[in-house]
Amino acid sequence: MADRTSVDAHLARVLALLAPLRSRADELVPLPEALGRVTAADLVSPIDLPPFRNSQMDGFAVRAADVASAPVSLPIAGEVAAAPGTPAALRPGTAVRIMTGAPVPEGADAIVPVEDALTTNESVSIARSRTVGEYVREAGSDLPAGSVVVPTGVRLASRHLGALAASGLASVPVRSRVRVAVLSTGSELVAPGSPLGPGQIPDANGVALAAAVRSAGAEVVLEGRVTDTAAELEALLEAALAVGADLVLTSGGVSMGEHEVVRELLEPHGAVVDVLAMQPGGPQALATWNGVPVVCFPGNPVSSQLSFEIFVAPSLRELAGLPAPVREPRVLESGLRSIAGRRQFLRGRRTRGGGVTTVAGPGSHLVAALAASDVLIVIPEDVVELGAGDSVETWEL
Amino acid sequence: MADRTSVDAHLARVLALLAPLRSRADELVPLPEALGRVTAADLVSPIDLPPFRNSQMDGFAVRAADVASAPVSLPIAGEVAAAPGTPAALRPGTAVRIMTGAPVPEGADAIVPVEDALTTNESVSIARSRTVGEYVREAGSDLPAGSVVVPTGVRLASRHLGALAASGLASVPVRSRVRVAVLSTGSELVAPGSPLGPGQIPDANGVALAAAVRSAGAEVVLEGRVTDTAAELEALLEAALAVGADLVLTSGGVSMGEHEVVRELLEPHGAVVDVLAMQPGGPQALATWNGVPVVCFPGNPVSSQLSFEIFVAPSLRELAGLPAPVREPRVLESGLRSIAGRRQFLRGRRTRGGGVTTVAGPGSHLVAALAASDVLIVIPEDVVELGAGDSVETWEL
Repeated sequence: MADRTSVDAHLARVLALLAPLRSRADELVPLPEALGRVTAADLVSPIDLPPFRNSQMDGFAVRAADVASAPVSLPIAGEVAAAPGTPAALRPGTAVRIMTGAPVPEGADAIVPVEDALTTNESVSIARSRTVGEYVREAGSDLPAGSVVVPTGVRLASRHLGALAASGLASVPVRSRVRVAVLSTGSELVAPGSPLGPGQIPDANGVALAAAVRSAGAEVVLEGRVTDTAAELEALLEAALAVGADLVLTSGGVSMGEHEVVRELLEPHGAVVDVLAMQPGGPQALATWNGVPVVCFPGNPVSSQLSFEIFVAPSLRELAGLPAPVREPRVLESGLRSIAGRRQFLRGRRTRGGGVTTVAGPGSHLVAALAASDVLIVIPEDVVELGAGDSVETWEL
Repeated sequence: MADRTSVDAHLARVLALLAPLRSRADELVPLPEALGRVTAADLVSPIDLPPFRNSQMDGFAVRAADVASAPVSLPIAGEVAAAPGTPAALRPGTAVRIMTGAPVPEGADAIVPVEDALTTNESVSIARSRTVGEYVREAGSDLPAGSVVVPTGVRLASRHLGALAASGLASVPVRSRVRVAVLSTGSELVAPGSPLGPGQIPDANGVALAAAVRSAGAEVVLEGRVTDTAAELEALLEAALAVGADLVLTSGGVSMGEHEVVRELLEPHGAVVDVLAMQPGGPQALATWNGVPVVCFPGNPVSSQLSFEIFVAPSLRELAGLPAPVREPRVLESGLRSIAGRRQFLRGRRTRGGGVTTVAGPGSHLVAALAASDVLIVIPEDVVELGAGDSVETWEL
């Protein structure tokens, strides 16, 4: 058998194939829907933050000069609430009751907190002097109008939306989500929950890959299933393009047997079909369909899910502004063997104290064991045996 | 002034108020919509995984006894694809071409991979003997029918959905999302993006708190805004209950000034209104409205957002099966002062090498500075001064 292609070489090809996803369009979304989206421009506040000079405390607005010789008593000349309207200017020698957030009247330059003021009838006793500007929030003191409130490339969290709302922005430009079509191939597949006849199995790949695409911050625009018939697959690919898919993922139909529908349809169109030096997930293919990248995974459900994590998820996460997946060394609880010349992705569970233990065997059909795992254990190509206490790379699922 | 209530004492009261959220109803959701939901029961597979005995490889199904004296040549008696139907039993002394995932014919007990087989006309040459069961996946070898495929209390990721789909489950019981109403109070507030008159500001709290609720894994069932008028607030609370809110969050109207609409409406109904020993976010209140918990934050946008993170987000995250927020010590890049008797929550940014630096000052109106932060720096009540190089607790935003 010919030399197998390395995981790294295939990953490089996938990254090249997905490069056009970086230049997809931006869109304008209403602020309340922008949570988790990535800003497509430096977002500038058109207004000062805060928009006007206001009080930091419930208390009394005064002129600092009028309380310089404290203790003093000033007549209370009115009240300013946090409410629409412009308050009257402060007459020298008076105080105005003021609420937190209310506009500071012209002429006032300090706030005496209510805790420090003794109110008697229509006057207020102020025990000590105040500096100019005390408890006054100046307009623009958080951010001046015209400044960047959230820069480009930021994944919007609630605190960003708060600042954008305070800036009076009703909608914001964000990167569009990558639009992905997920296609399952296999005559043996039925929809999960449908009765199973002999030789039939529920399609686990469609549900799992669609969910994995969403978890990676992209959008599923089509999920479909075809038998091992090239014309059916072609029609589904066309449907994916018709709904504007930026990327198509297929599962099944790429191995060395008969009835390999993905190979049958795509090889004549220049697909690269290959067997990788990895376990699980050896057979893989890459193609384009009318310019749209098509990444083809094997049909075994563990193989397809792991292939997505290895080759596609990191790119989608990066494009969605999500943090890179956690990859860290852990200590094996017990020894294991691996196949020379294959990068092995075993399923594992983290243990207390930074350890990791394998879950079931390497079989690519062990979907329940995958569900019971929380990490992948990555064994390099040149390692055939590891002992308890050896360090291995783990990828958080 | 009376002694302030400690942050810990208030947190304990909030946790008691939110306790009924733990007993909310379950719901049944279609599998493709269950991503990120928390299982409400041990989910049992009604079928074996895999459901039938099938081939692990593309190759030939044989009887191990027939290849015991390999090298041997066997006539090819047919082919089994991964497709609906029951294959004919294997006649002794023959081989059947078989695809990965296809049912293994009765009588066959080993698979010879295509790579190890030399095909000539209508026969296959097999170079070496095979053990019974080699490359055969037995029914139930991943999980026997009747076993738990995903236990209760698990936040469903794509790999769980894959195993549930493989088990033929079309829908699953999950915990219902906590249904939250977010109410902003303040006569000075307008919808973000509306023109601002004198004394008006955009309502940042509604957008920010609604997004924070969603980030904590809960659902926003109503978002509303009222002026400082008790009858308006009462109508909005009734509207929140009418749409089935499990929890109501309010901002504004709880401080010591005039026009404190939340106090005005809720204190006669037994609300606890308090000033906490914290900065920002001193004034806080707790109530119930017809049995539904109401958590009331101050109106300053930084105060309300931080109060949500401190008092409510951890509970919502736990109920949604999300990991606890990251809280870790970091080293201060430069010194700072804090107020005796207040737990201070400063905004900070992480620096290389595990450090942290403050962002702007402690003002509760600094929404742009909050947006530019990625952690809170927590200064205990009894600390008034820290130097560069001192360790502080940080909370990831």
